[in-house]
Parts: sequence; structure tokens; C-alpha cells
Amino acid sequence: MSKIEVKAYGAQAKDAALEPLDIKRREVLDDDVKIDILYCGVCHSDIHQVRNDWGNSKYPVVPGHEIVGRVLEVGKNVTHFKEGDLVGVGCMVDSCQHCDACNEGLEQYCENGATMTYNGKDKHLGGHTFGGYSETVIVKEDFVLSVPENLDTKATAPLLCAGITTYSPLRHWEVEEGDKVGVIGLGGLGHMGVKFAHAMGAHVVMITTSPDKSEDAKKLGADEVLISKDEEAMKKHAGSFDFLLNTVPVKHDLNPYIQLLKRDATMVIVGAIEPLEEMHGGSLIMGRKSVAGSVIGGIEETQEMLDFCGEHDITCDVEMIDIQNINEAYDRVTSSDVKYRFVIDMQSLKN
Amino acid sequence: MSKIEVKAYGAQAKDAALEPLDIKRREVLDDDVKIDILYCGVCHSDIHQVRNDWGNSKYPVVPGHEIVGRVLEVGKNVTHFKEGDLVGVGCMVDSCQHCDACNEGLEQYCENGATMTYNGKDKHLGGHTFGGYSETVIVKEDFVLSVPENLDTKATAPLLCAGITTYSPLRHWEVEEGDKVGVIGLGGLGHMGVKFAHAMGAHVVMITTSPDKSEDAKKLGADEVLISKDEEAMKKHAGSFDFLLNTVPVKHDLNPYIQLLKRDATMVIVGAIEPLEEMHGGSLIMGRKSVAGSVIGGIEETQEMLDFCGEHDITCDVEMIDIQNINEAYDRVTSSDVKYRFVIDMQSLKN
Repeated sequence: MSKIEVKAYGAQAKDAALEPLDIKRREVLDDDVKIDILYCGVCHSDIHQVRNDWGNSKYPVVPGHEIVGRVLEVGKNVTHFKEGDLVGVGCMVDSCQHCDACNEGLEQYCENGATMTYNGKDKHLGGHTFGGYSETVIVKEDFVLSVPENLDTKATAPLLCAGITTYSPLRHWEVEEGDKVGVIGLGGLGHMGVKFAHAMGAHVVMITTSPDKSEDAKKLGADEVLISKDEEAMKKHAGSFDFLLNTVPVKHDLNPYIQLLKRDATMVIVGAIEPLEEMHGGSLIMGRKSVAGSVIGGIEETQEMLDFCGEHDITCDVEMIDIQNINEAYDRVTSSDVKYRFVIDMQSLKN
Repeated sequence: MSKIEVKAYGAQAKDAALEPLDIKRREVLDDDVKIDILYCGVCHSDIHQVRNDWGNSKYPVVPGHEIVGRVLEVGKNVTHFKEGDLVGVGCMVDSCQHCDACNEGLEQYCENGATMTYNGKDKHLGGHTFGGYSETVIVKEDFVLSVPENLDTKATAPLLCAGITTYSPLRHWEVEEGDKVGVIGLGGLGHMGVKFAHAMGAHVVMITTSPDKSEDAKKLGADEVLISKDEEAMKKHAGSFDFLLNTVPVKHDLNPYIQLLKRDATMVIVGAIEPLEEMHGGSLIMGRKSVAGSVIGGIEETQEMLDFCGEHDITCDVEMIDIQNINEAYDRVTSSDVKYRFVIDMQSLKN
């Protein structure tokens, strides 16, 4: 298979800074869409992978799974996209497409393992996949999403990961108009959780450790702000939530949040791919409560989410950077110093 | 209100042995049923309460919430029971009967607090309630269950707690014929979980640390036995369970069991009213899995369970003791040396 050389940015080793690289992409196959990348969001997991925090990184790591761009070229079997279309690619670029999960439109839970956009196993070229911190990407049509043209394009990029990660559990656990929904943690994920829950008609409570985030949370659509360190306030809200979306990305104590749930209600963890502090069995037992997890969403649901954003005029709050500033941006993400997502203007790579 | 003096057995203080006591019961009120106690099961929580392990015990503690007996007398408003009827009383003797939980038949989650059979707040006499280690008990009709006459009566007593604790989650999470259900831990709760899941048509796997429990588990209705310390065997069963009923009564590691769940499946904790070891967020996230809790069941469902037992000829495996041997029995329960529930023949108290 012939290969195309593409400019990218990536890390050559665990503690190395990201730097310019040349990578190889496959040629456009019959089912493929070649995308000129306009914008790529910076997800916290990009940093985990670059730093090999999960022990499964392959170098060079070219991160990026919040990709928005325009179609440059399509393979001969492609029917849904044509040159010039505004499209997106999220965390997956392929899956087996025949297991039960794939058949149910849940490619993220593919029983044979979905192919991740970067650091996944490259079925075509061997080696591993390279993500969106690059000029172009070539992706099977079935994993390409259509991005609404009516939105601010640069602010749509993080929808592909932060957006679907929060949208999917709100839908799966059937959040409805009037439900009292708590979103725990106001970062890249949390700010999207607030926007979606608000747009779905829920009474949204932002639950945060930081009183200084109150004003922002309300601007994003929160009806109330609950400071989790305020024990009195936490007591007042005890047993009152229909659903909790927990976006905290680090190890933490679930017990105070479980106390907030109504009987039979669920808290869904979407951020902490980490061991959690000791949970008390009694806090689940006394109220038939659940703690669950959820990862991104399937392709069909990701398209649904993008369409929902188009209809409700929802985008992410972003801070734009040039690719040359990526290492500094990583440091700022690590210290939670971003409102709420960095997006790389990929034009900066091409100049 | 006039009071009746009744013989009982209880503990006068935290570290005291159980000994004969005289306690006061209320007179029979219009809505009450007076029961001559024939048998009372010994639940692990009796021991926790006697020893004040949960810090909320009130002395003297007269334990016992697996009560079976015959009706001696009924109040004038009582319509469902008459003298001589075989009846049972479980963990609750009252609740507010007007909150949402009570209105849904979920008195165990009463928002104003159900009245526990012992160590609950006694609404009539003040002080606290006394349980079934006694000659008689007087209970509001709405909290009295009808016990099928076709079963071995002494072996029905533990159905009132161990039975409903395992039956309720199997029903609530809609275990169906053909489902692969794992029951973790083979004790008082676990052995009932196996019987119920088997009777519901599930493919039942007993999951235990003890290979020497295999034969017993199969006699109880398990189709397979999985030794949780056998890493190879655990790997073979990974991602294959539709439902897990976790009856382990002590602090333990949930992670190996979560690995056994299918996508979207739930493990329900019914035994460990304790802090649990650190759970890994990723184990829930990668498969949209849930960990939940459940406590006993409502009155209507407890009756349904007893009727189910009558139809399917299900009772507990019990070892009979006299009340005079209760302290020794506690030591044996603590060291898991009982198959699978002690039941006190209350005749021994009356002699």
C-alpha cells in the first residue's frame, strides 16, 4: 500500500516534549474519507497517553481525537460525504462492525476492540494509529461524522470527545425535562455536561469544590451551584438528585456524592479512569443506588449529539492555540488553567 | 397503654453475652396481630447490633428479625389474619405509610424511616423495639406476612431476611430464564441467592473463594462453581455475566468481580454494609457497568417471595438451636461455621 507523508506533532518518548514529526498515512481506499484538519481539541487523555500514564502508549505518540476538518477526497464507495463537507472524527476510526456491541451501534464497546484514533493498532499499515495533531487524516467513512455548518467550527472540535462523553450517559440514563441533574466538576467534560443537561430541560446543579466557578457555571446554564466542601449545603441537597454526572478526572471520594442521590438513582463516572477512594457499601444499599461508568458514545449517537448541538446552538467554550504552543497548553491543562478546552488551529502546522 | 411482660433473650451491654430478660410489649391494638413465636432465624446483623458494630445499638438489644409463628390474637380492625394462621415478621414492623417509597410498596426505603423490628424507635411505648428472640411479638397487620403451610416451617424463618434480601434484587434487575447469574459468597444470603436464581431459570454460577464449597453449591442449584482465586478461571468467565449478586459480608475488592460483568450489566451488593476496597473507575467505564446496592424488600414483595417459595418448594438450609446456645451460635456465625442459617426453636425459651 502506498503511503503519504504528513506533517504532525508528537512525542518521541515518555518524557519528551511534543515536536514536529513526519508521519505516514495510508492512501485513500475505496471506503475512505481524506480530511484536511482545520481544528483539533486537546483532551486530557492526550496528555495521559503522551506521558504513558496508562502504560500502553506507543511512540511516537501523535495525539488528537477531537478532529474537525473538510473533506479533501473520498474513495469510490463513499456515499455520505463529498469534497468540501465539514466533518469530524472522534476517538475511534474503526471497529469490527459485526459483534453485538457494533450491531447495536455501540462501537465504543466493540467486543473485538475498537481502533482508537491514535495509539490504536493500525490495521492497514501495521504499527499504531496517529491522531489529529497533523495536517490530514484518512478515515473509513463509517467513522466520519457530519458537523453542522451553522456552528462556530473551531468550537465544535471538542464535541467529538468531551461532547459525546457527557451527552451519551445523559441520554442512556434517560435524563428528562424537570429532572434534578448534578454535574460534578467544571472542566472540559463538566462544562459540556451542564450545557447538555440544561438543553434537555433538566434543573442543573453544578457541583464543584471551587466557589469561584459559580458565576461561570451559571453562564453555562447551571440553575444552582453546590460547593461540595460546604457540608451544610451538601446535607440540604441529600437524597434529591435524579442523576449525577461525575466528570472528576482524578482519584476522589464518591461517598459524599452518593449521599446526594435519590433512591434508585445513578451516578455515572466519565472522568476517573483511576482507582477511586473506598466506597461505602451501605451508601449504595440504603437507597438501592448505583454507581456506573460510561465511555464516549457510538457513531450513531455521536452524530445525534452533533445534530442536537446544531439545533440547540451548542458548542464548547474554547481557547485557541497554535500547535507550537502545545507543550505549554499541556502544562496549563494539568493545572486546570483553561476555560474549558484548548483547540489547536491546525493552520499553524501548515505555515 | 397497658403492657405485657414477655420472656426474651438479649444483651445488656456491648460486650455482654446474651441472657434471659423480661421485656415489655404493648397490648394488642385495633390494627395489631399478636404472634406466638415458633422460630427465629439468626442473622449476621443480629451480631453486629449486639456488638454495636454500627454504633447505633440501644441496650438491652433483643435481636431477631426472621420471625415465624402462629397468630394468637388479632385487633378488631384486622382482616387478613385470624387466630392460628402461620405468619412471619421480617426486618420492619412499621413505616410512615404515606411517603413516595411507602406508596410504591418500598417501605424499606421509607423516607421518614421504617421502624426496624429491633433497635428501632418504638412509636407506642417509647424507647426501642425488641425483636424475635422472645415468646411473642405484637405487630401492625400491614407488616405481617402470610407463611405458606406446605413448607417446613422452621426452615422458612430466614426467608424473612436472607430470603427477601436476595429475591428482591434478582426481581428488580429482572433476572430472566437463561441469564447467566453469579452469586458471590456462599453463606446465609448466598445459598438463598443460588436457590432463587435457579428457580427463576437462570444459569447459576456460585463464585466462592473455597473450592470445598463446590459440591454443596451444586446441590443448592448452582450449574457451575467459579473459584475466585483461580485467575485463569476468572479470565475465562470475564465479560460473561448478565448479573452478579454479591453477598460477601465484609470489606473486599470489587474489581475482579466487575471484570466478570457483560457490558451494561450490574453487580448488586447486599452484604457489605462496610467500606469497600478501592474500585477502579476504568472497570466501570469500559463496558458501561454498574455497581448497586439493595436492602431487603418491601412488604408486598416479601409476600410475593414467600408465595414463590410455597410454589417452588424453597426453604432455607438451617441448623436448629435452643436459645440457650445463642452465644455459641454467634461465635460459629462469625467464623462462617454454619450451613447456612441458625434458627432458634423458641419452644426452648418457653420451657
